[in-house]
Amino acid sequence: MRTIDWIDGAIELVDQTLLPHRLEQRRVTELGELIADIQRLAVRGAPALGVAGAMGVALIAASVTEAGGDAELDRDEVVRQARLLREARPTAVNLSWGVDRALTRLDEGAAAILEEALAIRDEDIAACISMGLRGADLTRELTGKDPVRVMTICNTGGLATVERGTALGVIQTLLEQGSLAEAFPLETRPLLQGARLTAWELQRMGAPFRLLIDSAGPFLLSRGIADAVFIGADRIAANGDSANKIGSFSLALAAKHAGVPFIVVAPESTVDMNTASGADIEIEDRGVDEVAGFGGTRTAPEGIDAVNPAFDVTPHELITAIVTERRIIRPGSGETLATVPLEALRS
Amino acid sequence: MRTIDWIDGAIELVDQTLLPHRLEQRRVTELGELIADIQRLAVRGAPALGVAGAMGVALIAASVTEAGGDAELDRDEVVRQARLLREARPTAVNLSWGVDRALTRLDEGAAAILEEALAIRDEDIAACISMGLRGADLTRELTGKDPVRVMTICNTGGLATVERGTALGVIQTLLEQGSLAEAFPLETRPLLQGARLTAWELQRMGAPFRLLIDSAGPFLLSRGIADAVFIGADRIAANGDSANKIGSFSLALAAKHAGVPFIVVAPESTVDMNTASGADIEIEDRGVDEVAGFGGTRTAPEGIDAVNPAFDVTPHELITAIVTERRIIRPGSGETLATVPLEALRS
Repeated sequence: MRTIDWIDGAIELVDQTLLPHRLEQRRVTELGELIADIQRLAVRGAPALGVAGAMGVALIAASVTEAGGDAELDRDEVVRQARLLREARPTAVNLSWGVDRALTRLDEGAAAILEEALAIRDEDIAACISMGLRGADLTRELTGKDPVRVMTICNTGGLATVERGTALGVIQTLLEQGSLAEAFPLETRPLLQGARLTAWELQRMGAPFRLLIDSAGPFLLSRGIADAVFIGADRIAANGDSANKIGSFSLALAAKHAGVPFIVVAPESTVDMNTASGADIEIEDRGVDEVAGFGGTRTAPEGIDAVNPAFDVTPHELITAIVTERRIIRPGSGETLATVPLEALRS
Repeated sequence: MRTIDWIDGAIELVDQTLLPHRLEQRRVTELGELIADIQRLAVRGAPALGVAGAMGVALIAASVTEAGGDAELDRDEVVRQARLLREARPTAVNLSWGVDRALTRLDEGAAAILEEALAIRDEDIAACISMGLRGADLTRELTGKDPVRVMTICNTGGLATVERGTALGVIQTLLEQGSLAEAFPLETRPLLQGARLTAWELQRMGAPFRLLIDSAGPFLLSRGIADAVFIGADRIAANGDSANKIGSFSLALAAKHAGVPFIVVAPESTVDMNTASGADIEIEDRGVDEVAGFGGTRTAPEGIDAVNPAFDVTPHELITAIVTERRIIRPGSGETLATVPLEALRS
C-alpha cells in the first residue's frame, strides 16, 4: 500500500484522519482540495508532504495547461499557485522542497514536472529502505543490545512517507531482522498520531508494543523501559537542531538524563542549510480547539485560550545521532552536517 | 463551596467526573459507594482523600453502631471495613493517613471519630491558606519577579482539597495579591484533570491563563514562557523524592534545564518518613483503557496494550523547594525533611 501516489492523472492518498477506524483512499484532482487535505492533516509526515508538494505542482501544471486551452504552459500562473501550496504548512520544509524541486522542470512543461514528482516518490521509497538499514545497525552498535526496546513519538511510518517510514522504518527493519524486543509509541497529543497511526502500523506489521501517554515517556525512560529513542524531523537546521512533533524535546532531555541514545531519522531533504539554528525555525501554533478537546469531544470549559505549538526544537547537543539515507551525523559528539560526507544509498 | 463535607450524617462531595460541564453534589451514605467514588476519581487530590478517608471511617462507625442495634461500637468490624477503604488507592498516602487518624479515636466511639474527621477538614482549610501565603512569598523571592508567570500540572486546587488548593492555592494567592501575570495549566492526560478541573477553577477565580498539552510544557519552559513551576504531591519520601501525577518528572527535568524554580506544594500529611526514597513508592498502573481513548472516544486500534503509570517520582535533587503549611524545605540545596524545623501556621 502506498500512502500517496499518482494514479490516472490525479493524486490518490490515504485519508489519515479516518484511521485507525477506517482505511480510505481519497482522489484529489484540484489544488484547493490538496491544500485543505494538507492543512487538516489528511496527508502529513515530512517525506509524504514532499511528495504531495511535487505532485501538487504536477496537478497545477495539468490544470493550467487545460485551462489555457492549448499545450503551452502559463508559467507565471503555475508559480503563483505553487506559492499557495508552499504556504499550506510553514514548519514542514519538505513541502516547499517538493514544490521547488518540481518547479525546476517548469520550462520543460507539465510532463517533465510530473516525471520529477514521480522521481521524488521513488527516491523516498529507496531512502526509507536505506535509513532503516543504517538506523538498525547504529542501534545495535550504540546500545550494545540485540534485541532492543525502543521508544518513539508521532507517526514516522509508512503513513508519513510513501511506503516505509523514517524512525518507524528503523523499528520495522529491526523487527524484520529479529532485533526488536518491544516498541513504546507515545500517543502524541493533540492529534494522537501515535495512538491512531503508529499503533495501527505496528499492529499491522506484527510488532510487540505498548502505547504510552506522552508525559509517561520521559519518566519511563528514567526507569529503564527502553534502550533507545527514535524520532523523525520536520526540519533540521545547519547546526543539527531538529524541529519535530511537540514532545520530542521532552524525550530528548529525558534520554540524556537516562543515558539512552536519542536518534533523529530523516531524509537529506529535511536538512535545511539555509536555517542556521533552531532559533530561526518558525513554529506553527495550531490554536485552541485541538487542545480543548479531541475528535468532537470538548473537555475544557468554553471560552478558554491555549498555547498550541505543533512542533518543538531539540537542540543538537541532545541528539546522539542523525540518520539519513546517505550518512550518520553525531551532533552530540561534535559532528556537523557541513563536514560529514554523503555516502551511497544502502539497499 | 466545599469539595467534600459532612452534612446531616453523610458525606457530600462534588462529583468531579462531571466537570467542567456539570457541577453536581453527591450524597454518600455507604462505604461501598465511597470506595467506588474514590476509585473512579469522583473525589481525588491528596488532601481531599485524607478528609474522605477520615469521614469514611465516621461513616463506617455510624453504620456499625446502627447495625449493632445499640450504641456500643464493634471495633473489630470498624477496623476491618477501614482496611478496605485504606486500599482503595495505593499511592495516595493521605487516604490511609486520614483513615488511621480517625481510627485513633476508635475507643471513644463514633462521635469522637466524626469529631476527628471534622478537625482534619478544618485543618486542611487552614493549611491551604498557610501554604498559599508561604508559596507566594517564596515565588517572588526565588524569581525576583512580580508579577510572575507560573506553570502547573493536574488539579491541585479547591477540588483537590476542601476549599482552597495546594499548588493551585499558591497561584490563587498570587492572583489575590496582584502578583499573577499568567498561569499555564497542563491538560494532564490521561484523565485531563488540568483541562477539565484546573481550567474550570482558574476561570471561576478570574485568573489569566492559557491551557497546554502536557508535552508542550517542557519545551515552552525552555523558551522562557514561565518563571516557576508548581506541582502538588501524593507522597513525599523521607529524602524529598516526590510522587505526583505522571508528567511531573518531565516538567522537573525541563525546569532544571531552563533554570526555573520547581516547587512542590503539599501539606505535612503528605510527608511519609517511613518511605526512604522514591524507589520505595509503589506506582499504580491504571490499565489500557484510559490510554486507548480520549473523553469517551476510542482513538487507538482495538486489541492493543499500554503502560499507564498514574504517578511518577521526581528525585529530590530536581526539586528547588517543598512548601508545606509549616515550613519550606530546599532539597535542591541539600536541605532535608528530617532537619528543617516546623514553624507556626500562617494566616
